Amino acid sequence: VVESGVILQDLTLRLAQDGLFFPPDPQSFFGATLGGAIAENAGGPSCLKYGVTKQYIQGLEVVLPTGEVVRLGGTNRGAAAGYDLLHLFIGSEGTLGVVTGAELRLRPIPPERRTVVAAYTSVEMAGESVSKVFEGGIVPCKIELLDNWVINSMEDLMHLGLPRHAEALLLFEMDGSLESVEMEEEKIVDIINRHGALEVRMANEPDEANKYWLARRAGFASIVGRAKNVLTEDVTVPVPNLPILIRRCKEIAGRYDVQIAILGHAGDGNLHPSILTDMRDRDLYDRSIKAMDDLVEAALKLDGVLSGEHGIGLEKRRFIKTAVGAPVVDIMQKVKGLFDPHNILNPGKIWDGP
Amino acid sequence: VVESGVILQDLTLRLAQDGLFFPPDPQSFFGATLGGAIAENAGGPSCLKYGVTKQYIQGLEVVLPTGEVVRLGGTNRGAAAGYDLLHLFIGSEGTLGVVTGAELRLRPIPPERRTVVAAYTSVEMAGESVSKVFEGGIVPCKIELLDNWVINSMEDLMHLGLPRHAEALLLFEMDGSLESVEMEEEKIVDIINRHGALEVRMANEPDEANKYWLARRAGFASIVGRAKNVLTEDVTVPVPNLPILIRRCKEIAGRYDVQIAILGHAGDGNLHPSILTDMRDRDLYDRSIKAMDDLVEAALKLDGVLSGEHGIGLEKRRFIKTAVGAPVVDIMQKVKGLFDPHNILNPGKIWDGP
Repeated sequence: VVESGVILQDLTLRLAQDGLFFPPDPQSFFGATLGGAIAENAGGPSCLKYGVTKQYIQGLEVVLPTGEVVRLGGTNRGAAAGYDLLHLFIGSEGTLGVVTGAELRLRPIPPERRTVVAAYTSVEMAGESVSKVFEGGIVPCKIELLDNWVINSMEDLMHLGLPRHAEALLLFEMDGSLESVEMEEEKIVDIINRHGALEVRMANEPDEANKYWLARRAGFASIVGRAKNVLTEDVTVPVPNLPILIRRCKEIAGRYDVQIAILGHAGDGNLHPSILTDMRDRDLYDRSIKAMDDLVEAALKLDGVLSGEHGIGLEKRRFIKTAVGAPVVDIMQKVKGLFDPHNILNPGKIWDGP
Repeated sequence: VVESGVILQDLTLRLAQDGLFFPPDPQSFFGATLGGAIAENAGGPSCLKYGVTKQYIQGLEVVLPTGEVVRLGGTNRGAAAGYDLLHLFIGSEGTLGVVTGAELRLRPIPPERRTVVAAYTSVEMAGESVSKVFEGGIVPCKIELLDNWVINSMEDLMHLGLPRHAEALLLFEMDGSLESVEMEEEKIVDIINRHGALEVRMANEPDEANKYWLARRAGFASIVGRAKNVLTEDVTVPVPNLPILIRRCKEIAGRYDVQIAILGHAGDGNLHPSILTDMRDRDLYDRSIKAMDDLVEAALKLDGVLSGEHGIGLEKRRFIKTAVGAPVVDIMQKVKGLFDPHNILNPGKIWDGP
């Protein structure tokens, strides 16, 4: 049982000594705790291949509002008996109980890892390339999408020689045995070359590859510094609808005259369009909120989901009824009432506060 | 959305036309419905590699006791919003609602498939071989264990030329790409040859391999015809404890003078020791019940779980408190009360009847 307060990065370093890893790798990796990853059912770039936190939690130690400490799931006695309360807790955003420890399901670190970088003259074209890679029967470990603004920010920070005029960049990572990684790399390079990539790079040395991934993380983070406030969405659509969602983002940005940086986990259709705004500029902020609403609506219309990996929290409470329907909301609220009748756990999250 | 009443075998044939499959393959495959597999979170031989039903259900259509029809999960809007009621329903044995349809997460049928058959002079030795295969870093698709009685029953039915004096048989199946399957086959044959196998066979032709798997299914089923009544257990222990559990089965059989046929999904430590009994023979039946109790207790002591894949139902109600603890039972009963306050859904299952 691992204590829930451990930071994901520290956990990763600790596990690496035994040749193991815990796959979830959210952007908040350097600061997020294991308990936080469980509360949000965190994903990250590699959830494309490895799935989300839920798949890597075998059991939980939970403190209930009554003060009782219970174990849910676990490899030991009783794991499979009765109702699945384990999964009910994962992703419950701290509203049902306090997770204090977790039994993890770990994976061996794959022996080989490769990175392919592809630049495009349009974001839609990059989105289409992603679909083509899947049609080719390949599931890389990660496929990240970054737009022109993030490319320039990466370039400013790391001087990688990326084409600053490119409208989009795709970062692919493949992992596994040497044979399978080489085969996947060859196929991906072939597919993206045939689908309009402006420039393709293969980063086969770990140091070189790490530079791109570090730059991506930094570029991603630098959005926050670009504006006074940033509204980052977490919408997810089926991969074939990704190019349409990207087009919608641009239409919405035009409609409300706001700037939207587009980046995200293209491989599973999870986009984080980020609206650059300023809460003190009433007019701009109003337009930004409207743009955000339209964005969520556009994603839902494209068979998308409200939240790919960051839960409901405060901002999305008003969308939950639309998303799951009133009868299901009713059940969920009853479940909340059952565990936490006095609403003392993370009050106001998911459900309207008292 | 697939209707829940479809028989698993029919579903498999239907999906195969598109080159896809739904991995759960319980022994009841020819008669079980998809809804039944969902209610029990069914496994089967190939859950060793592919996992259980829970991993292949994306969404559910459920009728609640109020008559309301709700959708839980799903690839469409709202899948990730709020609490995970989808997993709460899977494995709830029909006690929370009636599943009428499911959105499945399917897999492409692997291009290649191989079978290796290994006979042993002792069941414990076979159990040890299983551990050694895992230590060698191989996860076959299936590893089935059959004891002398089942071997003879398979031989009577199918005339495969199996050694009738062997105390145990292991059936391995590997699937995947040609390269990976060949590599796994070679490694497994090497490992079992070095760990006391009496005889090793490689069934590389599909027809030949199918004969063994058909014989296994028939042998498994023929236990039911061997005695007036059969008490089949579903205990699961960590794989390294499997040889000890098998020894305990034999001790218990001796202690109560009952016959126990041993067979199961050795690869994930899920054993189905089957006590051959007769309900009309009061004395024999009493001893059989006691043997069953001891068996469950032995499994729990070996860090095992109550039920690998067949749920709680009626027979295991009295064990659930020991397995998950009183506070968790209390929560589960409240969850039951929340969904089904009048106890009209599968009354008496999991929880004591009214």
